[in-house]
Amino acid sequence: MELYTYHRSVAAHRVRIILNIKGLSCDYRFVDIAGDRLQRYQFRALNPQGLAPVLVDDGHVITQSMAIMEYLEERWPARAVLPKDLLGSARVRALAQLFVSDIQPLHNLRVLRYLRSRHDQGEDQLAHWSAHWMREGLAAVEHLLASSAETGAHCHGDHPTLADACLVPEVHEAIERGVDLSDFPGVRRIYGTCMTLAAFQAAAPETQMDAAGLVEPISS
Amino acid sequence: MELYTYHRSVAAHRVRIILNIKGLSCDYRFVDIAGDRLQRYQFRALNPQGLAPVLVDDGHVITQSMAIMEYLEERWPARAVLPKDLLGSARVRALAQLFVSDIQPLHNLRVLRYLRSRHDQGEDQLAHWSAHWMREGLAAVEHLLASSAETGAHCHGDHPTLADACLVPEVHEAIERGVDLSDFPGVRRIYGTCMTLAAFQAAAPETQMDAAGLVEPISS
Repeated sequence: MELYTYHRSVAAHRVRIILNIKGLSCDYRFVDIAGDRLQRYQFRALNPQGLAPVLVDDGHVITQSMAIMEYLEERWPARAVLPKDLLGSARVRALAQLFVSDIQPLHNLRVLRYLRSRHDQGEDQLAHWSAHWMREGLAAVEHLLASSAETGAHCHGDHPTLADACLVPEVHEAIERGVDLSDFPGVRRIYGTCMTLAAFQAAAPETQMDAAGLVEPISS
Repeated sequence: MELYTYHRSVAAHRVRIILNIKGLSCDYRFVDIAGDRLQRYQFRALNPQGLAPVLVDDGHVITQSMAIMEYLEERWPARAVLPKDLLGSARVRALAQLFVSDIQPLHNLRVLRYLRSRHDQGEDQLAHWSAHWMREGLAAVEHLLASSAETGAHCHGDHPTLADACLVPEVHEAIERGVDLSDFPGVRRIYGTCMTLAAFQAAAPETQMDAAGLVEPISS
């Protein structure tokens, strides 16, 4: 099994966490989505969107972080990352989806590039834009966490789920960009709990081989 | 079971399609997300994001269209909208997620409002912005449909799935906004096939009671 990953991709970060929680063996292929144009071009043969992550399992290509995580859960149900009860899994998926569809799509690299080049937005405006959507989304997450008895040490109970695998990469990104998280104590608490776990530590962007420049990109 | 819906919400449209395919009985609660401020305020008690759709089943609140659709599939597996094989369900979820997280979040009402008010974008720029993300996303969908032997009369085989329930609302929205879809024959073919089915026809925005002004909003 291979994961096409990029250290700064919030979506790839989610999948690395799930792979680690489940203890699955997976070869990483590092793709420099932000930089190398040739590499991005070649990567599009695998994913026409040119976006990470992509999972290849026995030659089968799976795109989209949520689809990949659901696939991993169905194929390797041990160390479950979705609750067994229907309402529990709906709550976890709703929290996860809030990150996946309501926060991250608005501040990812392609969107910031487009705002800069086609809508004449400067760096200050881009930072303001990203912080706005992060804070609006995290405020909703904070409310959902604080108002449910299902919230435990993690987003749902005391074990990590898909929701934690989506929360941690987004909070990491917010911290990297200097976004004020003081209004979100519940979010910060769960982030702290997750980061005591080896599965989360080993998935962190700064620990990836492509962050440290230790790998040749796939195109070379 | 109740669905909080708004005729112009692309995300609520998806859920209406799935309810219809499964033949499930559901009371619609119409919420005017675009207009009435008081109503939006009250709706936030149910969903802190103030976004439609929201499903309430036996008093339990479920947010996020993908989480709602997955819940409906798990709770009422008959007239399945996900393939039974793991790779098939991964493909359907990936196609669905492309609409849910890569296209719609970029052109929804809250984003356009924010671009207008805080980033000084005029109506022409907003139309250009929306059309760009629709066309970029639909180009990827077109490629994924054309390059897979799994594509049939519908996105995956000859029965509608979650992917069709996401494709149709997005294409409907693109048509409404006058976006050029001539480059996407596969997308248009599947849209046409879906729209011959009663489940899709009855879910269309223009056939909703709140579109025709036939209902009192929930706040009055």
